[in-house]
Amino acid sequence: MTNELQRVEGEGVTAPQGYLAGSIAAGIKATAGRLDLGMLVSERPAAVAGTFTTSSFAAAPVLVSRERVARGRAVGVVFNSGCANACTGERGLSDARQMAELAARKVGAPAEVMLVASTGVIGVPLPMEKIVAGLERLELTRQGGPQAALSIMTTDSRPKLLAVEFEADGRRYRVGGMAKGAGMIHPNMATMLAFVTTDVAVEPSLLQRLLRQSVGASFNMISVDRDTSTNDSVYLFANGAAGGPMLAEGSPAAAAFSAALDVVCGYLAQAIAGDGEGATRLIEVEVRGAYTLADARAAARAVAGSNLVKAAIHGADPNWGRVLGAIGYSTAQVDPGRTSVALAGQVVAEGGVGVPFDRAAVRELLQTERVRIEVDLGLGDARALAWGCDLTEQYVVENSEYTT
Amino acid sequence: MTNELQRVEGEGVTAPQGYLAGSIAAGIKATAGRLDLGMLVSERPAAVAGTFTTSSFAAAPVLVSRERVARGRAVGVVFNSGCANACTGERGLSDARQMAELAARKVGAPAEVMLVASTGVIGVPLPMEKIVAGLERLELTRQGGPQAALSIMTTDSRPKLLAVEFEADGRRYRVGGMAKGAGMIHPNMATMLAFVTTDVAVEPSLLQRLLRQSVGASFNMISVDRDTSTNDSVYLFANGAAGGPMLAEGSPAAAAFSAALDVVCGYLAQAIAGDGEGATRLIEVEVRGAYTLADARAAARAVAGSNLVKAAIHGADPNWGRVLGAIGYSTAQVDPGRTSVALAGQVVAEGGVGVPFDRAAVRELLQTERVRIEVDLGLGDARALAWGCDLTEQYVVENSEYTT
Repeated sequence: MTNELQRVEGEGVTAPQGYLAGSIAAGIKATAGRLDLGMLVSERPAAVAGTFTTSSFAAAPVLVSRERVARGRAVGVVFNSGCANACTGERGLSDARQMAELAARKVGAPAEVMLVASTGVIGVPLPMEKIVAGLERLELTRQGGPQAALSIMTTDSRPKLLAVEFEADGRRYRVGGMAKGAGMIHPNMATMLAFVTTDVAVEPSLLQRLLRQSVGASFNMISVDRDTSTNDSVYLFANGAAGGPMLAEGSPAAAAFSAALDVVCGYLAQAIAGDGEGATRLIEVEVRGAYTLADARAAARAVAGSNLVKAAIHGADPNWGRVLGAIGYSTAQVDPGRTSVALAGQVVAEGGVGVPFDRAAVRELLQTERVRIEVDLGLGDARALAWGCDLTEQYVVENSEYTT
Repeated sequence: MTNELQRVEGEGVTAPQGYLAGSIAAGIKATAGRLDLGMLVSERPAAVAGTFTTSSFAAAPVLVSRERVARGRAVGVVFNSGCANACTGERGLSDARQMAELAARKVGAPAEVMLVASTGVIGVPLPMEKIVAGLERLELTRQGGPQAALSIMTTDSRPKLLAVEFEADGRRYRVGGMAKGAGMIHPNMATMLAFVTTDVAVEPSLLQRLLRQSVGASFNMISVDRDTSTNDSVYLFANGAAGGPMLAEGSPAAAAFSAALDVVCGYLAQAIAGDGEGATRLIEVEVRGAYTLADARAAARAVAGSNLVKAAIHGADPNWGRVLGAIGYSTAQVDPGRTSVALAGQVVAEGGVGVPFDRAAVRELLQTERVRIEVDLGLGDARALAWGCDLTEQYVVENSEYTT
């Protein structure tokens, strides 16, 4: 967290002014009594930005919301866990639209400004009667953020939420967010959802640019199993409820907001990586000295996503050959003779060749919840961070269990 | 195996005429007495072709051999398991050259026509004194193929070799091959090595084209863990020892040879996939109805390489959503509404949407050593096959153990 930012404890998406959230156990999840349906609504129309999965099999809620986000204005989003509403054809699209319409009606807004998100099992239709009944009972409050963060969980072991406060032009603003990570109900495809709110006033086009930038360095730099989901979505609402002028591109206020957004997205992304299925460690990979940012990102993602690196870290094995192996098959430009690797702060390879190091000591250092791998490509100034988790027997157990 | 081909039992690379092989336990592997050093030599100078890893950290033997293969002529190859001679810098290059020179001297050939291959731990120099002593004791024979196939194994659970005989222009020719797959000594990076011989006479440029084509549909279509090695190499020797004219491009004889080569490469590639670390099942993915061959291959590889698909197959879980998920994030052009999926011969999704099927029956069908996944993209005529293996707890155990 940077100096100018203050953390707002335990609030998430309702920390900024003018947002309501609510959630309920609607019976969509197999386990009775678990929260699985929720809404997040701005008290005034908000600018909205979003980024979505690039999958050819993008789920119905993604198809519906992508179109609505493109218009730049929204009042809120309705979401459920327990069913992804993916690979459900025309019926899925109609269900997603109806779910948004019911939510919009609840707050007296037109259907087209309500977004929709789902996560859970693929290939199963939404239980619409449960959603109708659940939305009727659902209550929206200004303290609903933490509960909403629970309602989007699938096999996540803990909720993921954060809010920060920053100052610009003598005024205090907030950015709040929540996310869910790689989870299965009846084991099925992982889904990443994130919702971010702010009370700054921002035009949709600038909001979208700032979100893309932030997502590029956060959610797009994590991997649990290299399986991109059909439902991945990040939503960002900006309602201007804190007052103050519209954010001007290039202004100090825009920079402060952008930094706060980066902190929230970065925190949520790392929380997802560290809570990957079966994971016991968060792996942070820093690649520096790359020619280009694209090279740095490709190299960092290759290391963070390598099954062999992930398994080695699980065993606290300082197996730097696997790190170079992953860099080697990434698209990054590399000169082996200039490449060095450090594990948990200890240099283990220089000039592409191993150097003597205290294996027992490094092995000890690798046995922590957060493991850092640093690679210096020695070619330029570009730098990137990526996050992953260790690959464990538990990952295989969770994902090889029968769906029903 | 096609009708025109006959299988030659138990011989591998020495099945074609005019090839000698030998292997010995030189003490490179940690376990004493295991074969770990070998040679394959043609009795006459042969045309040679090769394909190599695209890793930026290509190992020393790859760098040395790639240059020599480019000249199109070779007499043989010397190889070892237990040490990859990768990430070993200048010393590694000098060791690889010396290893080739010692082997060349043994058969009275110039050093530049001897190739070299290594597999095993990354970042450790070759134990040259053991290689010198081993090569002195090594004996080359016309029956050395099966032993040579043993000497390249690391954690492979079984040797992989095949030879076939085909007829062209009234003459009988053979193609023999051996390979090793994803293996670890002290768990380290997997390496794929394959050696193929034939007694057909072929010009190097045609040989290289035919090899590329065959590798594109075999070794390049398998995945154990999506971690490309620093040492992957496929070598193909053609010595013309069976007599007959030089193979003419586009002739029936060239087609017969190409088909035999495809059978040998396909067999070895599938043997590697089915014997992946910790694997209990071979997964064969067929994608048809693609617009282009590149699309079909990209889609098939994505499915065969998906951790989630591999874990589902391990659990005999008919989780077709993961198959569509993998197709969705591949680069293949896809129309969800035209895509269908069959698992073990049973249609489970049509038009991108699930169809009713007998889950218990499909679950039963998935519990075999060879599981078939079929995807029809419904867009064109292109078709591709890819092979992988299930993801098991044992894979994680093998790869998270400490290196030393």
